[in-house]
Amino acid sequence: MKKLYIAGPEVFLPNAREQMDRKAALVRHHGFEPLCPGDLDIPAQKTKKAFGQAISRVNEGMMNDADGVIANLTPFRGEWADVGTVFELGYMCALNKLVSAYSNVADDHYQRLLRYYGNVITTDAAGYKRGPDGLSLEDFEMADNLMLDGGVERRRGIVAVHGAPKEELYTDLTAFEACLKHLAANRHLADQGLRPDELDASNDD
Amino acid sequence: MKKLYIAGPEVFLPNAREQMDRKAALVRHHGFEPLCPGDLDIPAQKTKKAFGQAISRVNEGMMNDADGVIANLTPFRGEWADVGTVFELGYMCALNKLVSAYSNVADDHYQRLLRYYGNVITTDAAGYKRGPDGLSLEDFEMADNLMLDGGVERRRGIVAVHGAPKEELYTDLTAFEACLKHLAANRHLADQGLRPDELDASNDD
Repeated sequence: MKKLYIAGPEVFLPNAREQMDRKAALVRHHGFEPLCPGDLDIPAQKTKKAFGQAISRVNEGMMNDADGVIANLTPFRGEWADVGTVFELGYMCALNKLVSAYSNVADDHYQRLLRYYGNVITTDAAGYKRGPDGLSLEDFEMADNLMLDGGVERRRGIVAVHGAPKEELYTDLTAFEACLKHLAANRHLADQGLRPDELDASNDD
Repeated sequence: MKKLYIAGPEVFLPNAREQMDRKAALVRHHGFEPLCPGDLDIPAQKTKKAFGQAISRVNEGMMNDADGVIANLTPFRGEWADVGTVFELGYMCALNKLVSAYSNVADDHYQRLLRYYGNVITTDAAGYKRGPDGLSLEDFEMADNLMLDGGVERRRGIVAVHGAPKEELYTDLTAFEACLKHLAANRHLADQGLRPDELDASNDD
């Protein structure tokens, strides 16, 4: 049975275990074996940093073992995805595993940039949109940064978006299940040494 | 000559090209060839999304071609690292390339969490520190999320930290050069099919 690594900031929730168990049950329902951060006990370490590194080691081991990932990119402590989850998505994309991602916020990346800057946007001489701090704004009709959406969609994954009620921002599983259905219908891709569409068509490597 | 991919949010600066050129010159000074996002022309595409995907493809191609990465994890549009850069760091860690990272903000991840929550922190029955929103706080004496610092340091990279003046937050190269010196002294690791220390010592895979 193919294994899916469940990446997302719900590990920080007060009911993290319960939420992970809900996700794991849904993963099994769709014919995959779930691999969740927190499933394995981390041995005690001498320092805080060594403990963090031990968690990193265990999570990377689970990712190496998995056939794919579903990454929860719902904005976390700000307008952007949780960086731990994003690291894991990049990691799995590099290994050309099955990948999909989702967000429980309907506003896309550009709409959230507008909100972040209070709609104070200018256009410079070269045509770039910029915030009051001078930083340029991406507008690629994507849910998050182009490396994230691009990495997923170029590997035939989906980035599912569902506007969840605020009180269910990290617990609503509508978009998560959309990813599961997509991966279940495309699980054969994991057997083909999946390569990104556009890399296949180019002369890279 | 070994190649380093230069990952960071300076691509969004008004003087992005100038800043990338400064970094590239320093990379060459330390005996590496720089590969920078933006170095290659992206062909025109029919849609915004297709253009974003084309950039994703080009950047991934550069990363595949590189022997290592230096990731600028300086907090960006909030208290955490730029998600595009974090994706790239995870990508390069998965490929076991030479990795190092830096931040131009001296406060570590936990100190920035305290600031994000206005120092309103509670400790739950299980001993977890939590913000007013109930989310638990990582405290691993790391510059950012444990997957980032852990991924770098377990591969014998460094996470260099330098408290830069606010007006030089994205242009100060002190910590960037510390990474370069470290990678220059350890460039032989790229020839050994680098494996994370702790993975080598375990029975993973």
